[in-house]
Amino acid sequence: MQIIHSAKDMHSLSKLLRVSDKSIGFVPTMGALHEGHLSLVRRSKEENEITVVSIFVNPAQFGPNEDFEKYPRHREKDLAMLSSVEVDTVFMPEREEMCGKDETTSVDIGALGNILCGVARPGHFNGVATIVAKLFNIVSPDNAYFGQKDFQQCVIIKKMVTDLKCGVNVIMCPTVREADGLAMSSRNVYLTEPERKASAALYKALCHGREFILSKRPSAPSAVQDEIEKILKSEPLLNPEYIEMLKPENLEPTGKIELPVVICLAARIGKARLIDNILVKEEPSLPDDCAL
Amino acid sequence: MQIIHSAKDMHSLSKLLRVSDKSIGFVPTMGALHEGHLSLVRRSKEENEITVVSIFVNPAQFGPNEDFEKYPRHREKDLAMLSSVEVDTVFMPEREEMCGKDETTSVDIGALGNILCGVARPGHFNGVATIVAKLFNIVSPDNAYFGQKDFQQCVIIKKMVTDLKCGVNVIMCPTVREADGLAMSSRNVYLTEPERKASAALYKALCHGREFILSKRPSAPSAVQDEIEKILKSEPLLNPEYIEMLKPENLEPTGKIELPVVICLAARIGKARLIDNILVKEEPSLPDDCAL
Repeated sequence: MQIIHSAKDMHSLSKLLRVSDKSIGFVPTMGALHEGHLSLVRRSKEENEITVVSIFVNPAQFGPNEDFEKYPRHREKDLAMLSSVEVDTVFMPEREEMCGKDETTSVDIGALGNILCGVARPGHFNGVATIVAKLFNIVSPDNAYFGQKDFQQCVIIKKMVTDLKCGVNVIMCPTVREADGLAMSSRNVYLTEPERKASAALYKALCHGREFILSKRPSAPSAVQDEIEKILKSEPLLNPEYIEMLKPENLEPTGKIELPVVICLAARIGKARLIDNILVKEEPSLPDDCAL
Repeated sequence: MQIIHSAKDMHSLSKLLRVSDKSIGFVPTMGALHEGHLSLVRRSKEENEITVVSIFVNPAQFGPNEDFEKYPRHREKDLAMLSSVEVDTVFMPEREEMCGKDETTSVDIGALGNILCGVARPGHFNGVATIVAKLFNIVSPDNAYFGQKDFQQCVIIKKMVTDLKCGVNVIMCPTVREADGLAMSSRNVYLTEPERKASAALYKALCHGREFILSKRPSAPSAVQDEIEKILKSEPLLNPEYIEMLKPENLEPTGKIELPVVICLAARIGKARLIDNILVKEEPSLPDDCAL
């Protein structure tokens, strides 16, 4: 497993891989890896000749009062995990090279960045889009893999790639969950034991919302929101932030529920802010099927 | 000479060229070609195995009251000129593919876009940066060529490439001028005969400004501005918009003139808005030397 620290070296390598006509799969991460990340790596390895994983905690996607400083960093453990799944190349750039003090250019993804998590995290998605644009330029992948847990992020990256003609195939992969349904996230380490238990209500509420839609066929999103809220509120530690029903392809609101629909939610619990989502389709072939 | 109309085909070609390890030189244009564009093509042909020229009148860089509709378009003449200098590939995409109605993503280049021409043309440089980012993604050039006439544009594209890690070498080439010194521009066709004659004062004023700096060594930019303004005002048809002295590498203002410095100016004349600039260095090796 090759570890590359400079953007210049990574760019040279991707150029070399281009000349040798090797397909490149890319998994951008902020480290603190878990089984969700590894599932993306495995998918990339199935579908590409070379798999590159980046580890970079991107300051541009953290707000001034967010957890940039205390975001979990486990360099050695991360590298051991990536080595165990036989990643070809790990790109671990330095902050100054990726987000230099003199940089002024950013990618603005427009209105999609101002809804859902963008309400509580202004500027977050432009920060994500900007770093992903940089990484795509450096790595020049054929395929890039993102987890469905960050549904809004996936839709935004797809939009950016379409709009800016990045020529990268963006692939959304199913959320990987703990035994009780909690979506895996690097931020789950922030949870105390009681908070961790209470957090299982998020996926439980989403599954109930899907069942409710498929069995009762309500037309008003508010009826489903009420059902979901009831379950979330049964856990006093959880503070729901939003519960939204949206068109999966563009995150437009559904005035009247029409399938397919994605239910997205966010809740605060202790020091953590957790998000999750579920797709509701006529014939869900899998519990967490995410093929759009 | 190959003519490509779709971004998909152009992307496939550039991918193929990458595999065959051919260096790609790229000259983005809005058509209405003149000798200035051809000089960029010749430079590209000297330095690259393949030269791609794009022709696209980019709506995103025109303001609502600007000349997008009447911007000169001479498709057949342009193609004949490009064929005469043996361009390999011309990329002429359709508006809908490059700037679709549903697009929301843009490149924001920050404060550099709000000075000089950005004052009279808000949003112009973000429009330029966005289309150039798209074109770079589609063409994936090694080297891209821009004329010094659009000095601010060159600095901004260099900045974008650095910030977003585009991996493209941006090369600024000397302004090509008419016999009386007027910088070649597709917009010169807007000038009536008397306006055309009066426009020669722009370059005359710039040359005088340079001479004045090199001989008198003034420290205050205003002294030079006054000298230049005097010459511009001698032509009643010319309405100067700005005369600025800036650091060539980042367009920061010079409180006190220190070489090298670039003098940038813009003036309105009839239906046209003309810009020009000159570099002032200790040992100018060429009348219009633009090596930064």
